[in-house]
Amino acid sequence: MTVAVFPGSFDPITNGHLDIIKRASDIFDKVIVVIGINSTKKPLFSVEERIDLIKQNINAFQNVSVSCTNDLIVNYASSVNAKVIVRGIRDSKDMDYEKPMASVNKDLNSDIENVYLLSDSSKNYISSSMVKELCRFKGNVSRYVPLNVKRSLEFKFKGEDND
Amino acid sequence: MTVAVFPGSFDPITNGHLDIIKRASDIFDKVIVVIGINSTKKPLFSVEERIDLIKQNINAFQNVSVSCTNDLIVNYASSVNAKVIVRGIRDSKDMDYEKPMASVNKDLNSDIENVYLLSDSSKNYISSSMVKELCRFKGNVSRYVPLNVKRSLEFKFKGEDND
Amino acid sequence: MTVAVFPGSFDPITNGHLDIIKRASDIFDKVIVVIGINSTKKPLFSVEERIDLIKQNINAFQNVSVSCTNDLIVNYASSVNAKVIVRGIRDSKDMDYEKPMASVNKDLNSDIENVYLLSDSSKNYISSSMVKELCRFKGNVSRYVPLNVKRSLEFKFKGEDND
Amino acid sequence: MTVAVFPGSFDPITNGHLDIIKRASDIFDKVIVVIGINSTKKPLFSVEERIDLIKQNINAFQNVSVSCTNDLIVNYASSVNAKVIVRGIRDSKDMDYEKPMASVNKDLNSDIENVYLLSDSSKNYISSSMVKELCRFKGNVSRYVPLNVKRSLEFKFKGEDND
Amino acid sequence: MTVAVFPGSFDPITNGHLDIIKRASDIFDKVIVVIGINSTKKPLFSVEERIDLIKQNINAFQNVSVSCTNDLIVNYASSVNAKVIVRGIRDSKDMDYEKPMASVNKDLNSDIENVYLLSDSSKNYISSSMVKELCRFKGNVSRYVPLNVKRSLEFKFKGEDND
Amino acid sequence: MTVAVFPGSFDPITNGHLDIIKRASDIFDKVIVVIGINSTKKPLFSVEERIDLIKQNINAFQNVSVSCTNDLIVNYASSVNAKVIVRGIRDSKDMDYEKPMASVNKDLNSDIENVYLLSDSSKNYISSSMVKELCRFKGNVSRYVPLNVKRSLEFKFKGEDND
Repeated sequence: MTVAVFPGSFDPITNGHLDIIKRASDIFDKVIVVIGINSTKKPLFSVEERIDLIKQNINAFQNVSVSCTNDLIVNYASSVNAKVIVRGIRDSKDMDYEKPMASVNKDLNSDIENVYLLSDSSKNYISSSMVKELCRFKGNVSRYVPLNVKRSLEFKFKGEDND
Repeated sequence: MTVAVFPGSFDPITNGHLDIIKRASDIFDKVIVVIGINSTKKPLFSVEERIDLIKQNINAFQNVSVSCTNDLIVNYASSVNAKVIVRGIRDSKDMDYEKPMASVNKDLNSDIENVYLLSDSSKNYISSSMVKELCRFKGNVSRYVPLNVKRSLEFKFKGEDND
Repeated sequence: MTVAVFPGSFDPITNGHLDIIKRASDIFDKVIVVIGINSTKKPLFSVEERIDLIKQNINAFQNVSVSCTNDLIVNYASSVNAKVIVRGIRDSKDMDYEKPMASVNKDLNSDIENVYLLSDSSKNYISSSMVKELCRFKGNVSRYVPLNVKRSLEFKFKGEDND
Repeated sequence: MTVAVFPGSFDPITNGHLDIIKRASDIFDKVIVVIGINSTKKPLFSVEERIDLIKQNINAFQNVSVSCTNDLIVNYASSVNAKVIVRGIRDSKDMDYEKPMASVNKDLNSDIENVYLLSDSSKNYISSSMVKELCRFKGNVSRYVPLNVKRSLEFKFKGEDND
Repeated sequence: MTVAVFPGSFDPITNGHLDIIKRASDIFDKVIVVIGINSTKKPLFSVEERIDLIKQNINAFQNVSVSCTNDLIVNYASSVNAKVIVRGIRDSKDMDYEKPMASVNKDLNSDIENVYLLSDSSKNYISSSMVKELCRFKGNVSRYVPLNVKRSLEFKFKGEDND
Repeated sequence: MTVAVFPGSFDPITNGHLDIIKRASDIFDKVIVVIGINSTKKPLFSVEERIDLIKQNINAFQNVSVSCTNDLIVNYASSVNAKVIVRGIRDSKDMDYEKPMASVNKDLNSDIENVYLLSDSSKNYISSSMVKELCRFKGNVSRYVPLNVKRSLEFKFKGEDND
């Protein structure tokens, strides 16, 4: 049985992430979406909010669950008996960014494999930061994120306006 | 059960290819190495020779076999019930090359997933063409290819000298 | 009035090319599609065939015409009073390829501007060579080229089979 | 008539920007330089200062004006009946950065075209941030920015020293 | 006699840096490792600490010394009669980053040459920031940094925990 | 004493090559320009012609000579006691191409260092193939190659016309 973890900040989850999750769930026996808690970054959504936003969108997939960790991803993967770390990449720039991380992961635990899926479809090029930026300018984000995320984003940024 | 095909010219198979095969065999239930027969290119080794050179190096893997096709790889994958096409990539240049092919594959058969493994270890950067080029100049290829390939290469290029 | 030339081999024209032509015709007063005749390459279609295949697809655009040249593109552009050379680029790899050509064009005639449009939509990533390769393997090219090109391609490759 | 907007932070305007403005003014009927007001970034120059620095350098161009917006650029472009967003790119790295933005712009308003000019000449590779960094170290910025910008930069950084 | 400076933040020095230093010391008569003091960045180690950590690792090289500067690197290089600025690059992304800096250096002082060594060996891909990030998560950094750096890092981050 | 070899096809030598040669001669004690004889490629100029074209342009440099080899460059470098292989790179695409070659060179002889100089000046982006292509179209190549090369190119391509 091959367990895969799909790590990220998911601040918030996008349709691009969901596409990778769906595709990973087709080829691996079990997929664990895992939020890496990075104390040095200021996220828009709390870990709990992010988990909630993900949960509501993975019900359709029997073999997908969501979790979080403040450990290194390779250590987390090892602790849940995952053989695979899945990453979605959009272009060569993403690949350049992934390469040193993959090498470090390999050094730390050579039993765990980094696997890349290409985010090539027409709606998957947008990152969480671009979604937030777009929402800040009142742009319509409905084609980039699921409905619950759209609502939560609008709520967050409405609040910002009131200050 | 997830079946993966690993397509290529394998003219000849290198240690880089074997590393990808080993890693794919760890995470997928079955891996089929498949030689794409491209009538417009002049290979150094015949399809039969290439199959032979591969066979001698995959005995250790219970779930790996070798085959060939003159069909499109997505069609071949479909015909053997494979859900995955595995590709090894070395850097962002390779990624740029893979991207349009992956998009076409997706258009032709959206049930088949392109999956990338990173050829990041210290000996896997060398391509089949570089191995042939190196051998033509009498360079030592023993760290880039398995022993049977080294011998076959040397035999081929010795013949070239006699002409 | 701004005249733009859109140079290429167009062997054959693809939907990606047509998308660039349409978009260029929206922003420039006149667009001339120009086939560069390069005696060192063996095209699949003759210049006359390529012009024909293009003509049938640009009727809808009042300000687009097609021509050919065996001169340098900057010289051709100058001879038709064009101020702009339009190029479609798909990714950073294309950009790297365009850059030295743009610099040479600038050296040869600094009055003519190189302008790039991004082939970002979901069907425009495929090149003429990929279309031919796909057709050679009997793959369905109908989403990448207009109907008349599809038929001509199939006719060409059927001929190839008969030999 | 084709109106083009040339958006940016212009903090401050450089010779590279001015080169793009000149070239855009040659091929489009009207060019509007537009400062995007981004409340999350701390600029060195205020919007008013930036507009002033630009104004003094575009007098020579009859069809160029300057403005600012806190809306999304596609919305601004639409409000001034612009069909084109012009961007200067220096290399493949810039292209990678532009691509997702262009896709989002296209999603938001498919009538507006993103057009790229290559900043290839020998003095245009330097960004506003590099100019500021260079000035902070008392480096001579006179070949990268117009004279009024050079003076304003020196004034800003002299102030910094006095604190 | 060719003197080379090797500039950087060295916050902290890594095995990758030391590899470049060793290789530069083989081909140039004298190598000066120079810490650029950038008042806008918050380093983990003070300049004095960074100099100390470097000094303990360059004793083996007769022709290598360490220094620091708050001037532009080309000015510093000129002041010590260096003809060469050495930079280690890992991949094409690094090259894209170096290119505009090299052009500016050339503009400022065309007598000083930028020279690049490729950090291609199996342990040199990791940057100072990645080492710090890894250490923050209690990952083992011993293969990426010399022993004294490892100890200093662990001491710094232990302190962080106590807060 | 540091001897450097500068390998290439030099078919023909360009101003870009000469710029690298000049800069290498400034920082190394001795520079040997070496033509790699590759029996599988059809050059425009014979090895003797290429050596002649180079010789006439390096007289000004006391420490530069020209040679040729049909051995691997690392072997040649070793045979002339060179510690350095110099390469000129124009952009990240060139870097991607150099990287695997550098790794192989390192494997074959770890005593020899690959050193890169950036071809960043305004006239150095053009390759030998582009020069030949341009000359074939009767374009003016005088800013890209020295005078003797321009004359030899024109003579070659005049001959072509007569056939």
